[in-house]
Amino acid sequence: MQPITSRDNAKVKRLASLHKRENARREGLVFLEGERLCTDAFGSGIIPSEVVITEKNIPWAEKYAGGAEITLLSDDCFKKIAATVNPQGIACIVEQPVLEKEIPFRGDGNDIFAVLEDIQDPGNLGTIIRTSDAFDFTAVIMSPSTCDPFNEKTLRSSMGSVWHLPLVTCTMEDAFAFFAKNGIDSLAMHLKGEDLKEADIKLPAAYLIGNEGRGLTDETSAKCTRLVKIPMPGKAESLNAAAASAITGYVLSSKRR
Amino acid sequence: MQPITSRDNAKVKRLASLHKRENARREGLVFLEGERLCTDAFGSGIIPSEVVITEKNIPWAEKYAGGAEITLLSDDCFKKIAATVNPQGIACIVEQPVLEKEIPFRGDGNDIFAVLEDIQDPGNLGTIIRTSDAFDFTAVIMSPSTCDPFNEKTLRSSMGSVWHLPLVTCTMEDAFAFFAKNGIDSLAMHLKGEDLKEADIKLPAAYLIGNEGRGLTDETSAKCTRLVKIPMPGKAESLNAAAASAITGYVLSSKRR
Repeated sequence: MQPITSRDNAKVKRLASLHKRENARREGLVFLEGERLCTDAFGSGIIPSEVVITEKNIPWAEKYAGGAEITLLSDDCFKKIAATVNPQGIACIVEQPVLEKEIPFRGDGNDIFAVLEDIQDPGNLGTIIRTSDAFDFTAVIMSPSTCDPFNEKTLRSSMGSVWHLPLVTCTMEDAFAFFAKNGIDSLAMHLKGEDLKEADIKLPAAYLIGNEGRGLTDETSAKCTRLVKIPMPGKAESLNAAAASAITGYVLSSKRR
Repeated sequence: MQPITSRDNAKVKRLASLHKRENARREGLVFLEGERLCTDAFGSGIIPSEVVITEKNIPWAEKYAGGAEITLLSDDCFKKIAATVNPQGIACIVEQPVLEKEIPFRGDGNDIFAVLEDIQDPGNLGTIIRTSDAFDFTAVIMSPSTCDPFNEKTLRSSMGSVWHLPLVTCTMEDAFAFFAKNGIDSLAMHLKGEDLKEADIKLPAAYLIGNEGRGLTDETSAKCTRLVKIPMPGKAESLNAAAASAITGYVLSSKRR
């Protein structure tokens, strides 16, 4: 197999375009660049539709690419499709998992959900997804204006967890309707809430995390069945959204039977 | 007062040089750009040695700069000293707090310390400092090869907390000698540890967090008085360092009398 050497080749142009997240999203695809992001996905059972490599990575592709179509690029062409200055020469295209509209429910009395209202920082989103995976949450529920879980920064900070658990995009109204129907307690992190340690929380439960700058909207807080807070005796006015999420996730997870 | 309009002005050149973190560090200074970073510091009692503004920010400086020397730059000159494309026109220079070599100790039976062995991600470091501040830790102890707490990303993610509590740089040996002398339990986060929820931990205590890639070194884990783990029933292999740190900080803080 000969590598493509022309930067004007139609395939190279298409790959370069797919590396722009908005283009890949429009086609329902995710472009993963670098060995780490690719193997995170493959290790989670994701089968790529196309693997793109430079010649030195042929052995890697033979080991990992399965039956996927392989596109071989010259080092120079790979630079055109890569975001980094010194790319590893490994990328792949996978189908973007459909962001579920229906929220899954196990019904074993141990369901936990993280609900994100307009989280904007991709690193926070990835870390929250990783933590939700670690604690075996049923799903991560995101408001429609939460940032894209398949952008590169979120993929990196999720360390593969975006592929491990259901990610659901729905309105807050739909989420609360689901909680009401299934008897799921909804917890708002709120400065006026009761101490998380002392609150008599029972599962199934969902906890809601607001936007980094302004927190939960008053409208959403008012709909929650319970307001809780993490006591902060120090000088910091608030916790990072992903840090608060980790603490609440741990506390809820430790209530499982 | 007339603004400096020449990019070749000696003062402009010096400010541009100080915006490179290594130059400011060499002089024992921190360059803060943008209103947020400046007011985070001022609100924590830090007095700038110099405030640098564009003309439109004169009212801001009159309100916040106190008795500091004010340097007025044209918009064009400010762009030369700024890292952002559309700078706000607000910056200041403050003396870098001395990273203590002596670890402080309150001795009231409630001391908690975070100990960071070679944390490399500036965002993680800032978030850990913020969490340590929120839970009123006595100090954050950093190994000499932990990343710089006064680089811009760490400053941003610490949300002002770098100015709120002692940051100590010392060797792991010195830290363990201090723990032994003062009867401080040292906890290593370790996959073979006992469940954090069930561990009979008493304060004063320190918990150790390792490098993002490889965790704590075996040498350091072996020196700890206790190995603990955060149970993770899901598929993620590990937690983000700042997330694990938040959970442990919360659990230790909840043991205070």
